[in-house]
Amino acid sequence: MKQIRRLQEHARGHRTDLDSVLDAASVGTLATVVDGQPWVVPMLYARDGDRVILHGSTGAGALRHVAAGSPAAFCVTLLDGIVVADTLFDSTANYRSAVVRGHLTVIDPGEAAYALNLMSDSLIPGRSSEVRSSTKKELAATLTMALPITPDGWTVKVRDAPPELPDDAADSGGWAGVVPLRTVAGDPIPAPWIGTDVEPPESVYRLVKGS
Amino acid sequence: MKQIRRLQEHARGHRTDLDSVLDAASVGTLATVVDGQPWVVPMLYARDGDRVILHGSTGAGALRHVAAGSPAAFCVTLLDGIVVADTLFDSTANYRSAVVRGHLTVIDPGEAAYALNLMSDSLIPGRSSEVRSSTKKELAATLTMALPITPDGWTVKVRDAPPELPDDAADSGGWAGVVPLRTVAGDPIPAPWIGTDVEPPESVYRLVKGS
Repeated sequence: MKQIRRLQEHARGHRTDLDSVLDAASVGTLATVVDGQPWVVPMLYARDGDRVILHGSTGAGALRHVAAGSPAAFCVTLLDGIVVADTLFDSTANYRSAVVRGHLTVIDPGEAAYALNLMSDSLIPGRSSEVRSSTKKELAATLTMALPITPDGWTVKVRDAPPELPDDAADSGGWAGVVPLRTVAGDPIPAPWIGTDVEPPESVYRLVKGS
Repeated sequence: MKQIRRLQEHARGHRTDLDSVLDAASVGTLATVVDGQPWVVPMLYARDGDRVILHGSTGAGALRHVAAGSPAAFCVTLLDGIVVADTLFDSTANYRSAVVRGHLTVIDPGEAAYALNLMSDSLIPGRSSEVRSSTKKELAATLTMALPITPDGWTVKVRDAPPELPDDAADSGGWAGVVPLRTVAGDPIPAPWIGTDVEPPESVYRLVKGS
C-alpha cells in the first residue's frame, strides 16, 4: 500500500514533461533572494525552446534586481482536481507543477520584439498577426527577461490518480474519487468604448472555443 | 492616460482584500532561502484568521528547513481574465495576487487535528463532518505549519479592468476587451473500486454545484 502511495505522487524526469506543464499555463511565481530574504512575484511567461521568457514593467524595482543576475526559481502549478479520500489524511489534490532554477538574463533589445510577440501569442494565440508590431518606445518600457532551462535546473511533480485505498478497511465503504477542475473562458466582454457592431477577432474566438 | 493606467493595476491596502484573495484559492507557492538560493514549492493551504495554515509530508526535507524558522514568502495568484488590447504592449491579464511574508512555525501536535480539519474543509467544504477524525498516527505523519499574517507582512495586487485606451488614436478601431476565465468542477469520477450504487457525499455535490 505504501509503495502505491509513493508511486502516485512523483517526480517526472523527461524534458517533454516539463514542456507540457510550462506550455499549459500562462502565469507562474518568480522567486529570488533580496537581502537574504525570499522575494516572490507572479508573472506572465512563455516558453521559447530552452528558456522561459518573462516580462514586466521596467518600473518594477525588484525585477531589476532579479534581472541583474541574482539566482531565481520560477514555479508553475496547475490544480487539476480535488481528491476526495475516505480519510482527511488521504484527501489531497491532483496537480502538475514545474520549477525552473537558474539565473535570469535581460533580453537584448534587438530580440525584445520577438520575445514580446511570443508572450502575446502564448496568452492569446495568433494575436501578434492581428495588430501592428511593438514600437521602440513600447519595447523600451518593457523589461523582458529569459530564464534558461538547463538539464539539471528543473523539476516536475505530478499527481494524477484516484485517492489512496485506506490503510484500514474499517475506513472504506463511502464514496471516494476525484472532482476534476478546469479553467474555462466566458463570453468576451467588450471594452466600454467598443460598439456592439465590432466583432471580436479570430484570436478571441479561438481563446473561448479552445478553453 | 498614464494616470488611468497606473490606477488600473494597483496594490490594495485593506486586510479584507487580503482575506478575500487567500480565501478564493486552494494552492499557493511557498518560497524560502536555502544556502543562499531561492527555493519554491507549491502547497495546499487554508486561512485561519490571522494565519495561513500549510501542510505537507514530514518526509519533505526542505519543508523541515522552512519549518525550522527560516524566512518565508507565500504567494497566491488567481488568473481572472485575458485582457485583449489594441496593442501587444497593452495586452495583459486581470488577476488577483497576495504575498504573505514571515516566519513559519510548526503547529503544536495538540492543535494539529484542528488544523488538518480546517485544511480539508477549505479544499472540500464540510468534509470533516463526514469522516472520522484523524488518528494520532496520521497526525504524526503530517507536518502542519502556520505563517502568521502581520500588519506589515503582506501585499495584495489586483488588476480588474478593461484594456487601456491606446495612447495613439491610430491604434484604435478594432475590438478590445476582456476574456473572463474561471475554474469549474466537472462530474465527480469515482475511484476504481467504488460501485455505481455508491452516491457521492453532500460535500462533493456542493463542490460541483458551487463551482
